[in-house]
Amino acid sequence: MARKDVIDGKRNEEGIASVLPLLKQRFGERFQTGQSFREQHSHTTTYLPSQLPDGVVFVENSEDVREVVRLCAEHRVPIVPFGTGSSLEGQVNAPFGGISVDFSRMNKILSVNAEDLDCTVEPGVTREDLNTYLRDTGLFFPIDPGANASLGGMTATRASGTNAVRYGTMKDNVLALTVVTADGEEIRTAHRARKSSAGYDLTRLFVGSEGTLGVITSVTLRLQGIPAKISGGVCAFPTLEDACNAVIMTIQMGIPVARIELLDEMQIRACNAYSKLSYAEQPTLFVEFHGTEETVALQAAQFGEIAAEFGGGPFAYTANAEERNQLWKARHNAYWASRALAPELAALSTDVCVPISRLAECVAATQADIQENGFLAPIVGHAGDGNFHVLLLFNDKDAADVERAEAFLERLNGRALAMEGTCTGEHGIGQGKIGYLRQELGSALPAMRAIKAGLDPHDIFNPGKIFRL
Amino acid sequence: MARKDVIDGKRNEEGIASVLPLLKQRFGERFQTGQSFREQHSHTTTYLPSQLPDGVVFVENSEDVREVVRLCAEHRVPIVPFGTGSSLEGQVNAPFGGISVDFSRMNKILSVNAEDLDCTVEPGVTREDLNTYLRDTGLFFPIDPGANASLGGMTATRASGTNAVRYGTMKDNVLALTVVTADGEEIRTAHRARKSSAGYDLTRLFVGSEGTLGVITSVTLRLQGIPAKISGGVCAFPTLEDACNAVIMTIQMGIPVARIELLDEMQIRACNAYSKLSYAEQPTLFVEFHGTEETVALQAAQFGEIAAEFGGGPFAYTANAEERNQLWKARHNAYWASRALAPELAALSTDVCVPISRLAECVAATQADIQENGFLAPIVGHAGDGNFHVLLLFNDKDAADVERAEAFLERLNGRALAMEGTCTGEHGIGQGKIGYLRQELGSALPAMRAIKAGLDPHDIFNPGKIFRL
Repeated sequence: MARKDVIDGKRNEEGIASVLPLLKQRFGERFQTGQSFREQHSHTTTYLPSQLPDGVVFVENSEDVREVVRLCAEHRVPIVPFGTGSSLEGQVNAPFGGISVDFSRMNKILSVNAEDLDCTVEPGVTREDLNTYLRDTGLFFPIDPGANASLGGMTATRASGTNAVRYGTMKDNVLALTVVTADGEEIRTAHRARKSSAGYDLTRLFVGSEGTLGVITSVTLRLQGIPAKISGGVCAFPTLEDACNAVIMTIQMGIPVARIELLDEMQIRACNAYSKLSYAEQPTLFVEFHGTEETVALQAAQFGEIAAEFGGGPFAYTANAEERNQLWKARHNAYWASRALAPELAALSTDVCVPISRLAECVAATQADIQENGFLAPIVGHAGDGNFHVLLLFNDKDAADVERAEAFLERLNGRALAMEGTCTGEHGIGQGKIGYLRQELGSALPAMRAIKAGLDPHDIFNPGKIFRL
Repeated sequence: MARKDVIDGKRNEEGIASVLPLLKQRFGERFQTGQSFREQHSHTTTYLPSQLPDGVVFVENSEDVREVVRLCAEHRVPIVPFGTGSSLEGQVNAPFGGISVDFSRMNKILSVNAEDLDCTVEPGVTREDLNTYLRDTGLFFPIDPGANASLGGMTATRASGTNAVRYGTMKDNVLALTVVTADGEEIRTAHRARKSSAGYDLTRLFVGSEGTLGVITSVTLRLQGIPAKISGGVCAFPTLEDACNAVIMTIQMGIPVARIELLDEMQIRACNAYSKLSYAEQPTLFVEFHGTEETVALQAAQFGEIAAEFGGGPFAYTANAEERNQLWKARHNAYWASRALAPELAALSTDVCVPISRLAECVAATQADIQENGFLAPIVGHAGDGNFHVLLLFNDKDAADVERAEAFLERLNGRALAMEGTCTGEHGIGQGKIGYLRQELGSALPAMRAIKAGLDPHDIFNPGKIFRL
């Protein structure tokens, strides 16, 4: 289980002691070693205990990153990239100490090629910043993990979110990267052509590598035209299986939903309370369609028929932007709504993903598990991808409760893996899922370790994440 | 240029001499060392000279592959995987000798999960075989590189083709692989979930690695529902720029064309002669739409308007399956039609890909280059991706003509790279583009070599391809 895979590493005290004054000398006020900076840079929305870096450097450009990497490489000191701190599996912890590299000042949008539907940004640009910037171009960047994450962090975690069902994940939307590698040089993984067969796909190797292979210094992204028409709605179902079965049929029929989000009864109750709404406390789908006036209406009608077939509905459908925003705001606040169910408890946000045909079975079994054990644990999911989240509220000060939570995670992941699924659809492995990755892809770990050793021979890039060396 | 990057390697004569009798002993009649087998397995549609393997083993299952790899690894003998031999850049040549592994007998469709829109196949299954098998399920596998290539080969080359503009390339359509690595063990890169953030994206690292990192033993593919309605048509334009500009606007407006293929005047002339057709000898787009009755008609109308804006048309549009098949048959025969322009000459099929906004400029400059130099060299392109091919006919027995061909290639690739494009959209690097990959992604070559060294420490997997070690 999770916690036992968190490595409490052996620190290279000598290297760290040598590098701190060098960084101070080079970066002055942009290098901070105060407790509050260090705490802030290891604290995330994870349930895992914080492990503090020894200092935080605020980089402003690629040359800064190269210098940090060169100094840290020379002294064998870990480097932990930090975007906005919204990762969920301990990705920004520093189990071996070392230097947190904060990208909040590397937040320039370097170019927008509207004609080619692409742009290049520094890693600290957040997805909301980018979309604000793009507004006048008629384009948008679709990937939406909920949090206003940085695009560098989203790349590193292979993030996705509510509209991956239509637009794919970061792996489908990153065209090219520049990355500083262990020798302190910056490499480019690709240029701007839509497709290429030129050599190894380093772009997709770095996407999802969680900072363990190099430090991303720019991201070239695909953009989408803002749809002429967006509409959406809410549809309640008698049971969770019915809701899942409606999702499965929607996907199998090839209806190009832009979002199709599942919220179980407990999640609806939490959202009602938190966002002052009055949805029926039933398993519910939040749906969105992108297209033209005609196609959106057609898709909504088709979805309404499917919903009715599984006892759902009426499908309350709206093309009113304000109503839609309210809907998605409630969805985006699901995490905080759930935490408000029991503010005194710790929250463990986890995700698994299964083939769509197994979704109903996996979600229903998980809900039964939650009920049997009396957990407070709402379920919310990017159901169109077969991906769902459980936010388990537990008392992290009570060893027995921690043990019960860990046993639940073990069962949840075991269930997903038995269905040919994955232990994480979008949160990544970080520290929390090292054991589950081993269960899922154990045969491939030697290959992953060989790649890590080839690109990061001294294990300076985010050590202690994804797997044990 | 191409030929100077073809490595004529130092053979490990001792290892090869040791391994041949062991393979004979193990595989009997399934291991062949006769000249004709060896020639057939190095001969492809490439213009590069053949380099023969020392023997050919016909594998029938994953255990066979593991044994071949173990024997070859032990004796440091190269392994060159062979699908159908339709690669274009010398991928199946054996510059260091060694063993060709023929997958034609590993052609079982292992499973089809219609509910999840996926299937798993052995690498020797061809795309046409798969689609024939799928016909009754209402599903199809969309990637269509023209040749009836094997799915293992298409994976290894990161192939795409006519409808990548709608459905993506192999990188977007391979969900998971099993691969035999250098230690002779089989690894699994992923399971069947639609998305995952679990560890390094080994799937996409092996897609496009051209057999240099391991031997693929099964491929799990995404499938698509057969569209309710397919329609297509042909539209001639006054100039090549006009045709390209119509493509650019079609893509920028987000019209979801399923295919949009550019043929220049010379290609049309070749197709007319070869396929007994009578298209106007003008730059022409072949277009296809997938959807419902309504959406297909809408898209065709939108495209017709764009075409007219650039002086094209009339857009001859048909939903008649027979007419459509004739159209695409002519397109698929473009290679043979071009060769028939001068059957006595050698043919060099090359491809580059640029950002869509630069397509008109790149194609027009290339056509001008062809005309200035008096080449027989039709242009045909997957224009919606910014990807186009030149089939240069030249006399490979005449050193001056070879030199002129090589200089043309140099200019073509230089042009694409200067436009932030790539030296290959879909053919891969093989031997022919080693020098251009260096120009395109030189800074990333150390990282690629580190990965190669990590996964294939003794360089037994398809050595002499993609880059020089």
